[in-house]
Amino acid sequence: MAPSAHPEPVTRALWWQDDALQVIDQTALPHELRVLSLSTLEQVCHAIRTMQVRGAPLIGVAAAFGLALAVRGNASAETEDWATRALLSTRPTAVNLAWALARLRARIAHAPGPERAREALAGALLLLEEEASVCERIGENGLVLLRELAASPGGPGSAGGAGTPVEVLTHCNAGWLATGRWGTALAPVYKAHEAGIPVHVWVDETRPRGQGASLTAWELAQAGVPHTVIADTAAGHLMQRGRVHVVFVGSDRTTAAGDVCNKIGTYLVALAARESRVPFYAAVPTSSIDWAIEDGVRDIPIEERDPSEVSHVRGRSESGTDERVLVTPRGTPAANPAFDVTPARLVTGILTELGVFPASQKGLDPLRTRIASGARA
Amino acid sequence: MAPSAHPEPVTRALWWQDDALQVIDQTALPHELRVLSLSTLEQVCHAIRTMQVRGAPLIGVAAAFGLALAVRGNASAETEDWATRALLSTRPTAVNLAWALARLRARIAHAPGPERAREALAGALLLLEEEASVCERIGENGLVLLRELAASPGGPGSAGGAGTPVEVLTHCNAGWLATGRWGTALAPVYKAHEAGIPVHVWVDETRPRGQGASLTAWELAQAGVPHTVIADTAAGHLMQRGRVHVVFVGSDRTTAAGDVCNKIGTYLVALAARESRVPFYAAVPTSSIDWAIEDGVRDIPIEERDPSEVSHVRGRSESGTDERVLVTPRGTPAANPAFDVTPARLVTGILTELGVFPASQKGLDPLRTRIASGARA
Repeated sequence: MAPSAHPEPVTRALWWQDDALQVIDQTALPHELRVLSLSTLEQVCHAIRTMQVRGAPLIGVAAAFGLALAVRGNASAETEDWATRALLSTRPTAVNLAWALARLRARIAHAPGPERAREALAGALLLLEEEASVCERIGENGLVLLRELAASPGGPGSAGGAGTPVEVLTHCNAGWLATGRWGTALAPVYKAHEAGIPVHVWVDETRPRGQGASLTAWELAQAGVPHTVIADTAAGHLMQRGRVHVVFVGSDRTTAAGDVCNKIGTYLVALAARESRVPFYAAVPTSSIDWAIEDGVRDIPIEERDPSEVSHVRGRSESGTDERVLVTPRGTPAANPAFDVTPARLVTGILTELGVFPASQKGLDPLRTRIASGARA
Repeated sequence: MAPSAHPEPVTRALWWQDDALQVIDQTALPHELRVLSLSTLEQVCHAIRTMQVRGAPLIGVAAAFGLALAVRGNASAETEDWATRALLSTRPTAVNLAWALARLRARIAHAPGPERAREALAGALLLLEEEASVCERIGENGLVLLRELAASPGGPGSAGGAGTPVEVLTHCNAGWLATGRWGTALAPVYKAHEAGIPVHVWVDETRPRGQGASLTAWELAQAGVPHTVIADTAAGHLMQRGRVHVVFVGSDRTTAAGDVCNKIGTYLVALAARESRVPFYAAVPTSSIDWAIEDGVRDIPIEERDPSEVSHVRGRSESGTDERVLVTPRGTPAANPAFDVTPARLVTGILTELGVFPASQKGLDPLRTRIASGARA
């Protein structure tokens, strides 16, 4: 796990190099860019468990490489079973992790013994490429929306003249740190920036864990995209004053009716967006749509995390050390729901790799049909 | 300014004792209860400027005592002018401060020289008593609302049986730390607690300055009121799940049409409350209603504070020292609007010392008439 060199500017969270998995240690961000070189199953498990690697899509990809590393050491069926159990136990609630492992195991199931290690690595690399490709398509589809906003009468281009940026607001981190490349909610922003469309991002700090302040701000700085961090409390005020043109957020789980389950606080952003007629899009890979449920408020259980994430804040002290400071009276009870559900009625559209769809059962049905018939981006 | 003993439990932010003004140092909370004894004008100015004393009503009262202390030392008109200017310069935007000083000066204007010091002190003490009385009336009027909620069909009493608490949510600190005694938004909670009505308070941490996490949580603990701190992002989720029965917030400035200007984030709470049909009350002394303006979004300028309040968080480190930690990448731009405006349409009622009034011009007109005719609580 020795730190290794990294190409600048950084735009990927994980890659294969020198016969090992290279990952950015997300627990060291934003104050330090540290790359970990993982060459054993145990190292991969540790990185996922301690959230050095985070973000549902990225965890799935990392787990696939973990399995490939285990099979490289020993191609027996016993090792494969054992490695799968070890990886699954790192983050028991991560759906993508189980999905990625099942997919990889199906691929190598019929490979002859000596071929298994090579097949496993090839499968993990393919998964990484597929995730990147899906995210890039999301970005391209989102770019169309940003182009329309930039060109619309009363939009940024007309209001302030050429060069006035499209103002995007986002919550949490749904950038390439969470997916490998491009990201979901941030993919349209990166595509617009590349295309020369001026864009500025309001970054919700996203208490309690602060993924906006620490990860999204860092990502955008790497890419040179203008941005401003705000307390989560300020998002409504900015929209009320007309300073936001569009909201993009990610989604951990989207229902067949278009309800969006995402980081706690997303629902408040959506309420404010509707009140000020700001379009609100959830950017999601179609693989994260849960076609089995419709009513997200009723049917999605919300994870309660450790209250110390609310009562304490982590950051860099003035003397340059990492500190965890207590912000409530000692012993104060705190509650920490990690996600909330934004009902479909507040969602302007579901932005996927296959296009933008209305957030309703009727709106998503054509997408469901396309996926059932085997369409892939 | 030596620390002095304090009666337990603490329920007042400021009092006169031993020929000096005693104040709780709010910059030391919640980790340390420190009482400052202020016996000179300079000490009072310093306490206001450094926010050891904060909260609009409390600043006004403290300034009145500061003027009384100055007059005690020298009863000349020059001293009075000089002291007034010094106090006004501590927090230039605090409306109550100017109002309190003008009131005190009118009182002592015609007192003979030797009487002036005694008159000034009596005037400051009267102001303190009046603020306390106004807040207590707000509490009593709010208690009526809480009694109704506790007794309503489908309310806490019926849903969970006797002993199920009324669930209140509040934002920022509008308790006795901000007003001297009782508070505004918290006064109904204290009255209900005294009356034996079970009540539980969800406390928004209130980023960026964290007045909920540090001050409101501490106040409620002093009074033995059950409470739970949450990230500001969680308020909407709790309301959506039916876990909040009523919202009480303070207001720095309320318009003649019922728009409420309060701590940043109040507007998001109000949007979520309306969506889940949770009653939302702004608790305000009638003296803070600005009858000269109607449209708060258009006419109330919003103070922009230092971005470092967003990029940094203050708290107590694990080694027991007070630390300020950086939570964004170094140099990240941040924006920090300190207040927002909640339009009257989202406000269920304006809770005052003279009763509860609908948040509209028509609803508030009778109150305006009563005040114009000289009514006082």
